[in-house]
Amino acid sequence: MNDAERQSLIDSGKMFKVLDDGFVRLVDTMGGDSSIVQAARVSYGAGTKKSSEDRDLIRYLLRHQHTTPFEMCEIKLHVRVPMDCWRQWIRHRTANVNEYSTRYSLAIDSTQRTKPNQWRIQASNNKQGSDGIVDAANGALLSEREARLHAACRAEYTDRIAMGIAREQARKDLPLSTYTEAYWKIDLNNLLHFLALRMEANAQYEIREYAKTIGEKIVSQWVPMAWEAFCEYRMNAVTFSKTEQQLLSLIYAGNNTAVLARLRAINWIKGEGSETKPILEAREFLNKLADLKIDLPLA
Amino acid sequence: MNDAERQSLIDSGKMFKVLDDGFVRLVDTMGGDSSIVQAARVSYGAGTKKSSEDRDLIRYLLRHQHTTPFEMCEIKLHVRVPMDCWRQWIRHRTANVNEYSTRYSLAIDSTQRTKPNQWRIQASNNKQGSDGIVDAANGALLSEREARLHAACRAEYTDRIAMGIAREQARKDLPLSTYTEAYWKIDLNNLLHFLALRMEANAQYEIREYAKTIGEKIVSQWVPMAWEAFCEYRMNAVTFSKTEQQLLSLIYAGNNTAVLARLRAINWIKGEGSETKPILEAREFLNKLADLKIDLPLA
Amino acid sequence: MNDAERQSLIDSGKMFKVLDDGFVRLVDTMGGDSSIVQAARVSYGAGTKKSSEDRDLIRYLLRHQHTTPFEMCEIKLHVRVPMDCWRQWIRHRTANVNEYSTRYSLAIDSTQRTKPNQWRIQASNNKQGSDGIVDAANGALLSEREARLHAACRAEYTDRIAMGIAREQARKDLPLSTYTEAYWKIDLNNLLHFLALRMEANAQYEIREYAKTIGEKIVSQWVPMAWEAFCEYRMNAVTFSKTEQQLLSLIYAGNNTAVLARLRAINWIKGEGSETKPILEAREFLNKLADLKIDLPLA
Amino acid sequence: MNDAERQSLIDSGKMFKVLDDGFVRLVDTMGGDSSIVQAARVSYGAGTKKSSEDRDLIRYLLRHQHTTPFEMCEIKLHVRVPMDCWRQWIRHRTANVNEYSTRYSLAIDSTQRTKPNQWRIQASNNKQGSDGIVDAANGALLSEREARLHAACRAEYTDRIAMGIAREQARKDLPLSTYTEAYWKIDLNNLLHFLALRMEANAQYEIREYAKTIGEKIVSQWVPMAWEAFCEYRMNAVTFSKTEQQLLSLIYAGNNTAVLARLRAINWIKGEGSETKPILEAREFLNKLADLKIDLPLA
Repeated sequence: MNDAERQSLIDSGKMFKVLDDGFVRLVDTMGGDSSIVQAARVSYGAGTKKSSEDRDLIRYLLRHQHTTPFEMCEIKLHVRVPMDCWRQWIRHRTANVNEYSTRYSLAIDSTQRTKPNQWRIQASNNKQGSDGIVDAANGALLSEREARLHAACRAEYTDRIAMGIAREQARKDLPLSTYTEAYWKIDLNNLLHFLALRMEANAQYEIREYAKTIGEKIVSQWVPMAWEAFCEYRMNAVTFSKTEQQLLSLIYAGNNTAVLARLRAINWIKGEGSETKPILEAREFLNKLADLKIDLPLA
Repeated sequence: MNDAERQSLIDSGKMFKVLDDGFVRLVDTMGGDSSIVQAARVSYGAGTKKSSEDRDLIRYLLRHQHTTPFEMCEIKLHVRVPMDCWRQWIRHRTANVNEYSTRYSLAIDSTQRTKPNQWRIQASNNKQGSDGIVDAANGALLSEREARLHAACRAEYTDRIAMGIAREQARKDLPLSTYTEAYWKIDLNNLLHFLALRMEANAQYEIREYAKTIGEKIVSQWVPMAWEAFCEYRMNAVTFSKTEQQLLSLIYAGNNTAVLARLRAINWIKGEGSETKPILEAREFLNKLADLKIDLPLA
Repeated sequence: MNDAERQSLIDSGKMFKVLDDGFVRLVDTMGGDSSIVQAARVSYGAGTKKSSEDRDLIRYLLRHQHTTPFEMCEIKLHVRVPMDCWRQWIRHRTANVNEYSTRYSLAIDSTQRTKPNQWRIQASNNKQGSDGIVDAANGALLSEREARLHAACRAEYTDRIAMGIAREQARKDLPLSTYTEAYWKIDLNNLLHFLALRMEANAQYEIREYAKTIGEKIVSQWVPMAWEAFCEYRMNAVTFSKTEQQLLSLIYAGNNTAVLARLRAINWIKGEGSETKPILEAREFLNKLADLKIDLPLA
Repeated sequence: MNDAERQSLIDSGKMFKVLDDGFVRLVDTMGGDSSIVQAARVSYGAGTKKSSEDRDLIRYLLRHQHTTPFEMCEIKLHVRVPMDCWRQWIRHRTANVNEYSTRYSLAIDSTQRTKPNQWRIQASNNKQGSDGIVDAANGALLSEREARLHAACRAEYTDRIAMGIAREQARKDLPLSTYTEAYWKIDLNNLLHFLALRMEANAQYEIREYAKTIGEKIVSQWVPMAWEAFCEYRMNAVTFSKTEQQLLSLIYAGNNTAVLARLRAINWIKGEGSETKPILEAREFLNKLADLKIDLPLA
């Protein structure tokens, strides 16, 4: 694809840039909101045709996890992704995939670059997350060193190729930041599952950017009713465990003493006075309460 | 399997009777609670080995839908099920299946019989459910006619076979109540998904009986920690949509006028005074509130 | 669908009748021969664009079992099938399915009828096959009795419904010959696998009729190059085992004495003179030889 | 795992070294040859119990692609693999996987090293293959430079971690040669499919080494009858297309003039006299003939 072709796709709303040199391109779709309804109605027969509006039916299906009608929609994307991100992406096994072959062709000459203000600090409270950005001086240093490392890796690759080494072996020391491309085809049900996991706050930044682009720029336009229902009943829904429901009962009954007694009885809070400490599961519960604007003082 | 062998399996806790002539038999398992932990720890490395207890880790994984470690456990069952029920069962595509072949062998000479007090009445408020039992006189009549129909179908099948008709064609008019048998092998993650859908109150009675047997008699013994977490975080959990969370906020604030105004604004209740009527989604919400012992008067 | 709509679909080449009251209807497709090529070329990069013709590339891919590009094509069918046949169909797990629900709606009032000249005799040499047709008198008798049985089953179903029995239970004694309907969506690679298994001579007549309709009427028009390659390299291909290759070597060397000695050494033929008997695997080999117009006398 | 534990596993035949620092470790199995037979017999009923030997039945099933009984066996492996190789491995979607997380833990400090006599030359006749080894001087140079590049990449990774960069981002420039580990669980049918593709001569050397280890060291011991049948009917089988069968017929008839005429008619050979050139598909056919010791002079 040359630059003019790419620009034309972007202008037409069929291509979306992601990260520094990645993209998501809409190749094809099969079906839409109406196909979900059509499939649901073969299950339910003619009976519901009049009484149910399409939107209501789609919301009902998604709310009650009747997922098979959503499989009747299919989408095909062409994506360009750093291999490190692709390693996470490919774990979703229900898609059809054709990836660019660096065994057959020369590796794409592009790696994901990190700007000085994009180096993320290891989160202290989440072993698999990040929290904040390093200072400007270190960021600049890291970006500069990154550029040198990318150049060294590419030079080694190019030299190996020049010396006649097989592409399948020459590629072995490309950095994980190297971009790859793929056609990726998936049904809407499995795509929504992918989006639910990868748009979440604790998904890694890079894949979250791709997921948000696919969801907000493409799916929302393709199947607006399904997208709306997904946001309402899944993306922004909250789940309470059996224990949490018992606590909610006590909270809504206004009996804070009983709540605290119960939290101690099930070992969700430990320590006394200023030493009072909730365990991880309790902290997760408090966060859900805060979203409901419920404040629960622990001491 | 002869009667003595079957009784011995039942005594050993490896076989469980379901319905009038069905069963679930435990054939083999791979792994257990410890395999879930083992697999999770290859993901997380040695770091967590000391700090996390197995039970806490399994609960954490299930709560946060880290489902892949549960796929490391596998179970194989031998089941005997009416074909009508098997038609629902087989829709779960992630299992391995070997079903008894009525093309190769004579059909099993057994059909699911309904006792006079087991004939269920069509639910008026749920097109795909039942509600209550028909009266004794009608029940007796229906069971008697059922027996005659089963006999007529079997006689036709037997006659066709006797006349030399191919088994693959002779079977074409067996009733859906005819029992079939199968080996069914599935990983724990997909089994829990099956159980969540099929143990639910609105699953059909017959498959619910199988699901409950598998869950409560077999899975609970095989992987007790995973089973406990499943009951806590999935089977008995409740989910609130974005809209429901906003309503929960208003309810906690004690502002019932605002709640009712909002319910009308989003068209969840219609009509005035004694004509006040909540729509389906509103009734579902009220049911969830009732479980939390929250009473919300609509007028 | 009313009769006029159905006829219009048939006239347009989008609907095909199968059996006495079944059909296959083309609902939608995604992609085509060009999508296979497009996907293969993202794998292989721009390098091959000029040198390879589309047809050659598709044939190469299919010949070498590079199956993933074929997954880039998707098809959606609406089918009407006897439940007995559907029981085989649904075993192909890689498709998306929405079936007509007899739990939610009244069962379709149609069963597969067998004409007097369609009753097949059990094959003597193949436990799961048929061979020949019963005589006219017996055929007429069987068809008449079949009609009576269908009527009795339907009457029982209708009476149960009239007595208020839940649809989910009333259906339990419908005969397997009852028609059901479904939307069925599958990618081309998995569809070709389905067709290879179900168009084969030893697939059951009923599902073979559906498979042939899908293959010859629909796939051949939709992706003509892939269909041609499928017929050439898969449907009409033959496979020889390691042992068979060794025998072929001897046969092509013209050394029939050595062939016979080897057949005896590996126990593929037993007995002497007119008692000489090939085992099953040897008979399969002889059949393959016959297709190559090679005659191998065993004695 | 410490060195003593690893050695003990190797001694017990449960762990096998692959490449310079990889391994395949047998963690668990479910079932075996007898489970294949057991499952096949539930399909076929009691009828075959006496007449068929287990070995014959397994060979029959594999020969006729009755694949579902093979799904009744399950195996779990712990593997250590370079990420470049893992990128190919993970494309087999039917397995259960838990991979070591470099988001959660520090990346494994090991990369696949290439010895001076292991640098492979790009194949001239196969864009995705290699052919031969570079000379000793270049090999030594490449290995030395590889070591330096690995050290540079690791140093950068270590420095980023030391500067507080999140593990999920610090890893972005690790070379593809970095080792990863995973638990990999798969049923026997899908494993045999994996082995058929990855033990083949044109699979890449690295993954072929893993596949051969799994097949020859583990599967051959675990399910010896299935393994033997797999080698006979699949791994060492040959397939002839419809066109090739027609040619084989002509060749057997001894009519070389007709063979050559046909090869020209279908454009499989082009040019005259010493310029005579077979196309790719013709060369593939000639190779198959050579394996049968059939010599077909083209001019």
